Order: sequence, then structure tokens, then C-alpha cells
Amino acid sequence: MFVDRLIEQILEKESPLCVGLDPRINRFPPYLQQMAESGHIREAIVEFNKNVINSTKDLSAAVKLQIAFYELHGAEGISAFSESIEYAKENDLIVIADIKRSDIGDVAEMYAKRYLGELPIDAVTVNPYMGRDTIYPFLKYVDKNGKGIFVLMKTSNASSKDLQDISVQGKPLYEKVGGIIEEMGKDYIGKYGFSSVGAVVGATFPEELKKIRSTFTTIFFLIPGFGAQGGSAKDAKYGFDKNGRGALVNSSRNIIYAFEQSNSNPWEAIRDAAVSARNTLREETLKYVAVD
Amino acid sequence: MFVDRLIEQILEKESPLCVGLDPRINRFPPYLQQMAESGHIREAIVEFNKNVINSTKDLSAAVKLQIAFYELHGAEGISAFSESIEYAKENDLIVIADIKRSDIGDVAEMYAKRYLGELPIDAVTVNPYMGRDTIYPFLKYVDKNGKGIFVLMKTSNASSKDLQDISVQGKPLYEKVGGIIEEMGKDYIGKYGFSSVGAVVGATFPEELKKIRSTFTTIFFLIPGFGAQGGSAKDAKYGFDKNGRGALVNSSRNIIYAFEQSNSNPWEAIRDAAVSARNTLREETLKYVAVD
Repeated sequence: MFVDRLIEQILEKESPLCVGLDPRINRFPPYLQQMAESGHIREAIVEFNKNVINSTKDLSAAVKLQIAFYELHGAEGISAFSESIEYAKENDLIVIADIKRSDIGDVAEMYAKRYLGELPIDAVTVNPYMGRDTIYPFLKYVDKNGKGIFVLMKTSNASSKDLQDISVQGKPLYEKVGGIIEEMGKDYIGKYGFSSVGAVVGATFPEELKKIRSTFTTIFFLIPGFGAQGGSAKDAKYGFDKNGRGALVNSSRNIIYAFEQSNSNPWEAIRDAAVSARNTLREETLKYVAVD
Repeated sequence: MFVDRLIEQILEKESPLCVGLDPRINRFPPYLQQMAESGHIREAIVEFNKNVINSTKDLSAAVKLQIAFYELHGAEGISAFSESIEYAKENDLIVIADIKRSDIGDVAEMYAKRYLGELPIDAVTVNPYMGRDTIYPFLKYVDKNGKGIFVLMKTSNASSKDLQDISVQGKPLYEKVGGIIEEMGKDYIGKYGFSSVGAVVGATFPEELKKIRSTFTTIFFLIPGFGAQGGSAKDAKYGFDKNGRGALVNSSRNIIYAFEQSNSNPWEAIRDAAVSARNTLREETLKYVAVD
């Protein structure tokens, strides 16, 4: 059961932190930029990610790979994506691929097969605009392979209001999506009371997050928007229940490019930033765990 | 201007047909299946697509590549995707990449850069669930590079009703999306009165298609669902205006795997199917053009 494995990683490491592996070559340490410029893009990305993983693996429950940063580099980038995933799994991290895919059933099956069937990815993100039959193909892997999915519900960007906040019979559309997620996930609830069919809810809208947490008690949240996008640990905490469970908080830029604001070794600066993120999140969100 | 180039291709070829290049290796002619099985997946896909293009290029205005079928094969598939696109452009076809991407601004920029900036793709499909700021990065390429986008509006699958048909102040949500598309596209209207910011509207819901055509007169439609998904040319025609303009109709499986129901050479069977699709579409949708 995906959600139980995720929760146990969080409890074991006392960290609901997810590190975002979003490789931007122009922000890599100079020697890796040079490696990429001399034609070794795949190697440079993998080397960067391996160092990030080595520096943060005891501080984070999971890593999230935003596939756009890999797709940008074509076939080389896709190879780097697979290799980085393999390395994260070798280091016992939960691996989330942020793909936000959505398509008609037989096409969605191709995406599900690739990302949940063939690669050792634990969970993917999916977009709900096309409806239930575009999510079912992913659900098969939740059922048979112990994988997870996170359906976009209330995203962290400012324009998420354009459609997601539209009032439907007095409630925002994202609550309607929440109802669909809850119903699709009801057969995949693990021992901690959460489902392997989760939702993406941004840290940038703390009031909404609080309301969503209290309305949808069985949905586990993947929370982006913490750090560079403006959400704080005090905001993200609203995604957690009174037992300090129910959410995983992602930070990408503020951790993996922390060395830009530092004079120390890049990997040490990354580790320092991850320690800091883990500590604030632990303080804000997991404090109830201590008295369990 | 993308939309003008597309309309001129349709008029020149007297065909609003778009051929879907959706490679399913297990349905390839035997010699190409063997090529793929012996490790040459990229070569097999490219060979298949080149033959489809050679057999149909004078009958279709455009080709649409559903990227899921390429992603399934990892780096090899992505190389086949790029090579197929190059070949389609060499043959003067309009190339649409059906990627249905959507992500926060700085991530959407990566997708836009890759698919509209670097590859010679003319237009991509995008998903609107995350709102305007996730579409703007693609719009830059419409503005500066003469590219196009098709935003998902009312998709061809049965569950499209789950969110897209939800009533918002008495109107379906997809009309709200239509309003956003119309507004985003108002600065990119070409000489035929249509915008390079188009919409995806399925042939499987002809009544809705008719209503959408009359409501949104400047939006050009990419119409999937014709053929294998059940939409007929009589259904698809509702996407066209009284001058026989305003839509491109995609068919994938019914054309590119037509040889499964035939004893002739695969490429001849594909050509025959494309001739038939072109003729029915021309008869139903372009008849007004003849009297211009």
C-alpha cells in the first residue's frame, strides 16, 4: 500500500519533507554546467541529482521529479530522468513523478504503463479536467502494484482560481474534484486512515488548505508551494491532521539551489537548507507525533 | 500566423483531415514489429510514421502526434518523436503535438520552450485546469514564433462530463473555458477571422459542438473522436462555420491501422482509408468552399 509506505517513511525520518529534483542546468555548480555544455547533459543532470540525494536522503521521505525539466532535454533528459529515479530507489526514497498527465482512456493507459508499470516510480500526479475515465488507467496500478496517485485539486499558482475556485452550488469546483478523489480512493485506504489516491493542494492558500483538510479526512495531500513559491511551514501545517499526519510537503528551488546564497560547498549548502526545511516542518507539523 | 497557415493547407488540399501518428507497435505490420522486437524501436516507429506520411500527405492538412505513444518507449521513443516531426515538416505538413501539458508558470515555460521553441512543431494541446498563468508561457510562442495552441474545452471521452459539463450559473463549465480561450486569443486573429489560440472539442458530442461553434465564432477547433471513437463526419461538420471553415478533424486508428481489415499492402490500405476519410469530410464540411 503506497500511502502506508509513505507515512512510515515520514514517521521514521521524522520528516514530511519531499525534495524536488528539478534540474535547471544554468543554476548548476560551474563544473556541472561545463559538463553539460561539453555535451554531457545526461551525466550532468544525474550527477547533480545523485549529489542532492546523497546530501538529503536522511532528511526527506521522498523526492519529486518534475518531468518538464527532463523533457526539455529530449532523449538525454529522459535517460537522466530514469537514472535519477533508479538512484533514488536504491536509496530507499519514495519517488514521485510530477507528470500532471491526463488523456482519454487508452492513451492514459500508455502513461500509466510507462510511469507506474515500467519505471520504479511510487506515485504520479494527474490532472482531473477530462474526468474519471482518464484517471482509471492509473488506478489499476494503485490496485495491483501498490502505487499511488495525486490528483490536482487546488494548485499553488495564482491562476488556480480561474477554474478551481468557480462556485458550483455554493462550493468551489475543487471541492467537487475532492469528492471525486475521495470516491475513487475509498477502496485504497491504508492502516493510518489515508488513501493511496491523494490530492495536490498548494501551501500558498492556507485558508483553503485548512478547509480542505477538515472536509476530506481520508485524502493524503502532496503540498507544493512551500519555499520559493511563498508558502511557509505555518501555512503547510494546515494540510496535516491533529496527529501530524496526512501530508507531504515539497520544496525544490529553496533546497537544491541553496548554494547560490552561500560560500560553502554546494552539497553542504543543500544539506543545510534541507536540515532547516525539515526542522521547521517537523516543528510545525509533526509535534503531535512526539506525544503519541 | 499559425491559424492562417493551417486554414490555407486545408483549402489547398481540400481536406480538413488530420492524421494521428499514434504508434502502437503491436499493431504494426509484422516486419516492423520484428524490427522493434530486435531492439530497433526508434527505427521501427520512424519507418512506420514515414510510410504513413508518404501515403497520406496529399490528403491531409496536418498530422497530430500523441506523445504518450512515444513516451512509453523512453529515450528511444522521444527520439522517434523528434525524427517523425522533422519528416512531417520536410513534407510541408502542419504538425500538432498532442501533449495536453499544464503546470505552474516557470514549469510551463520549460514545456513551451521544448515543444514550441526547439522542435519544429506548429501547435500543441494544453490543459486549462490550472488557469491562465499556466497557458501564458505557450502564448509567447504564438506571439513571437507564429505557433498555435489548442486548449482542452469539451473533450471526446465519456467522462468529460464529470467536470466540463458542470453547470456554472446555468452554463456548462466548458463554456467558461471557452470564454478564457476566446479572450486569450483575441490578439491572434488571422485573416480568416479565426485565432491561433484554438480549442479541442470532441466529435462525439455533436449537439455541444454545434452550440460551441455558434457561441465562439473566432475559436478554431481541433476535433478528435472522429472514426474509432465513434464520431462521424456528420457529427464533425457541426464544428465548421457556414463557409466550411474553423475546424480540423483528427483520425488516428481508423486510418493508420486500416490494413488490419484488408488484404492489400499496408500503406495502400492506409491510403485508401485516408482517401475515404478525406472524401467524407470534404463532402460534409467543405461543400461551401466549392461555390466560393
